Amino acid sequence: MYVEDTIAAIGTPVGEGGIGVIRVSGPDAPAIARRIVRRGNENGDFESHRFYYGMVMDPDTADSVDEVMAVLMVSPRSYTREDVLEIQCHGGYLVTRRVLDAVLRCGARLAEPGEFTRRAFLNGRIDLVQAEAVIDVIRSKTEAALSLAQHQREGRLSERLDAVQGSLRHGLALIEAFIDFPEEEVDSATQGEIEARAREALARIDELLDGFDEGRVLREGVSVLIAGKPNVGKSSLLNTLLREKRAIVTSVPGTTRDIIEEVVNVRGLPLRMLDTAGIRETEDIVEQEGVRLTLEKIPQADLILFVLDGSRPYDDDDRMILDALAGRRSIVVVNKSDLPASLCLPGDLEGVRNVPISTATGAGIDDLREAIFDTFIHGHAIDSREYVALSQARHRDALEKARGRIVVFLENLAVGHELEILAVDLRDALDAVGEVTGETTPDDILDMIFQRFCIGK
Amino acid sequence: MYVEDTIAAIGTPVGEGGIGVIRVSGPDAPAIARRIVRRGNENGDFESHRFYYGMVMDPDTADSVDEVMAVLMVSPRSYTREDVLEIQCHGGYLVTRRVLDAVLRCGARLAEPGEFTRRAFLNGRIDLVQAEAVIDVIRSKTEAALSLAQHQREGRLSERLDAVQGSLRHGLALIEAFIDFPEEEVDSATQGEIEARAREALARIDELLDGFDEGRVLREGVSVLIAGKPNVGKSSLLNTLLREKRAIVTSVPGTTRDIIEEVVNVRGLPLRMLDTAGIRETEDIVEQEGVRLTLEKIPQADLILFVLDGSRPYDDDDRMILDALAGRRSIVVVNKSDLPASLCLPGDLEGVRNVPISTATGAGIDDLREAIFDTFIHGHAIDSREYVALSQARHRDALEKARGRIVVFLENLAVGHELEILAVDLRDALDAVGEVTGETTPDDILDMIFQRFCIGK
Repeated sequence: MYVEDTIAAIGTPVGEGGIGVIRVSGPDAPAIARRIVRRGNENGDFESHRFYYGMVMDPDTADSVDEVMAVLMVSPRSYTREDVLEIQCHGGYLVTRRVLDAVLRCGARLAEPGEFTRRAFLNGRIDLVQAEAVIDVIRSKTEAALSLAQHQREGRLSERLDAVQGSLRHGLALIEAFIDFPEEEVDSATQGEIEARAREALARIDELLDGFDEGRVLREGVSVLIAGKPNVGKSSLLNTLLREKRAIVTSVPGTTRDIIEEVVNVRGLPLRMLDTAGIRETEDIVEQEGVRLTLEKIPQADLILFVLDGSRPYDDDDRMILDALAGRRSIVVVNKSDLPASLCLPGDLEGVRNVPISTATGAGIDDLREAIFDTFIHGHAIDSREYVALSQARHRDALEKARGRIVVFLENLAVGHELEILAVDLRDALDAVGEVTGETTPDDILDMIFQRFCIGK
Repeated sequence: MYVEDTIAAIGTPVGEGGIGVIRVSGPDAPAIARRIVRRGNENGDFESHRFYYGMVMDPDTADSVDEVMAVLMVSPRSYTREDVLEIQCHGGYLVTRRVLDAVLRCGARLAEPGEFTRRAFLNGRIDLVQAEAVIDVIRSKTEAALSLAQHQREGRLSERLDAVQGSLRHGLALIEAFIDFPEEEVDSATQGEIEARAREALARIDELLDGFDEGRVLREGVSVLIAGKPNVGKSSLLNTLLREKRAIVTSVPGTTRDIIEEVVNVRGLPLRMLDTAGIRETEDIVEQEGVRLTLEKIPQADLILFVLDGSRPYDDDDRMILDALAGRRSIVVVNKSDLPASLCLPGDLEGVRNVPISTATGAGIDDLREAIFDTFIHGHAIDSREYVALSQARHRDALEKARGRIVVFLENLAVGHELEILAVDLRDALDAVGEVTGETTPDDILDMIFQRFCIGK
């Protein structure tokens, strides 16, 4: 087991709440528990996994710091597999900090972001894919993103990667057997078996790579710009989309709007609405200036909702925006379907998906949501319990590297290259997969990964 | 014991963090634990105060919702004295909400703000003074405020109130003994004893009322306005005061500045700096407009720091502000003490405390902090372990009512009023004290008190 010093951090979000949790991991955790947590008449060791009522005492002055619940989880039955102490105190900003201070003054060190999870990984409780999924679970903004992250955290993506590694190792073992006995020739049955294992790995990698685009948009969301000249209803469309989201959010009391503001959930796909302040402004300013502002934002968006006013004729302002959309993923939204139609769509909009809506009556909004979803997600059952997808660019890059080595391997195998070279190809492919699961991930990449975490996880 | 339905809420602050805690209290808590928390191979009842590793399962679909730690605290050994279940899950916004949803779908009801603490009070674990102190502990912005709140939460103010009630009850018992035996006359020794008890209660109440102003400012902080014409250094003074505060705050990683922004800690006294945006603006605008803006804000402040430029002569703009300070608590701050002095203070500033400082060199800033502190705190050892103070207007009002009844009682006793009337006076006084401790507090006042709490506490 990986041995380290003792780290501590506040594990709960910063802010006012009923409960704060201070988490301590490492060899000194039991001693710190005995030193600062006073449990009525109880003394001596903390029983593992027993939830004790007590007081945290200042280690220097012996003043009481807070009334707490404390639990020691003895290694290896803990999050990090080390001895872990958790202290539950009152949830205020200052009081959690005072309890943390008391722990730090007993010799613990303030944890780096993600250091608890990093230890869980280094101590072999979870692999790197699972570790990375932990922060995705915490950050998820939609059910679908959460579900994808939970599946990864539970190890379902790791199982797929294990299967890839299994195929590669099997092929490699067959080759190495012949390297060890150079007097023997590889028979054609074995050569066929080796090739089959490599193709099996390739197919498994391709399946994972195929799902990447969807996995990524579910995890990261897509940026959406509502474009259009002033007074076509951009602001109303934004409000309509936001309103449905808010209905969900406001069912949780104590939630501030800021937290997921401007993230619209479309069937589990998180849409980050770009420049919503700008949208509101442009409705109030002169046409040309509004169009110019819209044009500037177009390159930043994954998807543009190009809003036209169905009750007004198509004009030069619309055309300027349309020209800027060339080559961009976009949906034409024809608003004001409740009014008499005066719009005639130009020929070059043929082939672009177009959805009539009315922000006044709500007509067509569901169709629009469907159209947005279909633009990014193609028929996979993303809400199924079996859905597993690659969702991180780092994973995709490593698997593409592995794929490249396997393709080279198959070419070399076909032309009868030396066994040593074939073995190197497969080992390289295995190493590339190992970068995903953490077996061969360099330390600087690990640093980068855990830097994204919050403190206390 | 007070019997109720089962309530649930997220106990940790809203936001991203490593750990979220869902808290459930009431008779269904054990059944909910058994229904949604799957603990590997373990089945059956949860042992009280054992910290179990497990999965929260969706009660309808049986899908796993999150990997959790769960602990059941069997009545009466819990925060509310009811059966309490706590589920520790991943700390994200959505994932905590999903675990809460699972609990609610098992029949728990979403808790009102402060409802857990209200149950702790109704079930007799703590009195109302202690319950009110819980939210003060969470909200405290300075060590001194936190320490005051913790002392109240631990029951030290309650002990003082008990002593008041003890004296009153003793006096009342002596009177009632004679009411029961109307044939007997109150002898002078007993009359002296009754009077002594009432005076004792009065003295104890007076001591508490004396400390109220300080307790209140420690708890609520004071609002401070930095006033002065443009370019006297208001903005620099604000930054100097804020900087010292920030040095404390930034030692806690993950803290956003917003949380305690613009609260300056002066020896434990929280200063809420008024209109700091305005200060920065006024430095950039023309003199008269700046002075006008300052004048408007003066009535809102508990204390005005009237900043003058020591290197410029006193002028009409200064005079306009000075005139507006009549009758307001203020400190004259003469800035730029590092430059040659050209300021001559007018005679009507005699008697007002004046502190020379230099925001350029930092000279005098400690003196200014001292002067601010002394304006509100008068020599009590507020950082001592024994410091107990009244800090809420509600408590003060009730104690003043009690005091009034005791004064009337003493007058009636002196003129030999009927025993029944004397008894009524003392009972009224007791009831007034009971409004503080919660024995006689009307429900609408309780509602108001707990409405101030966060959800989940």
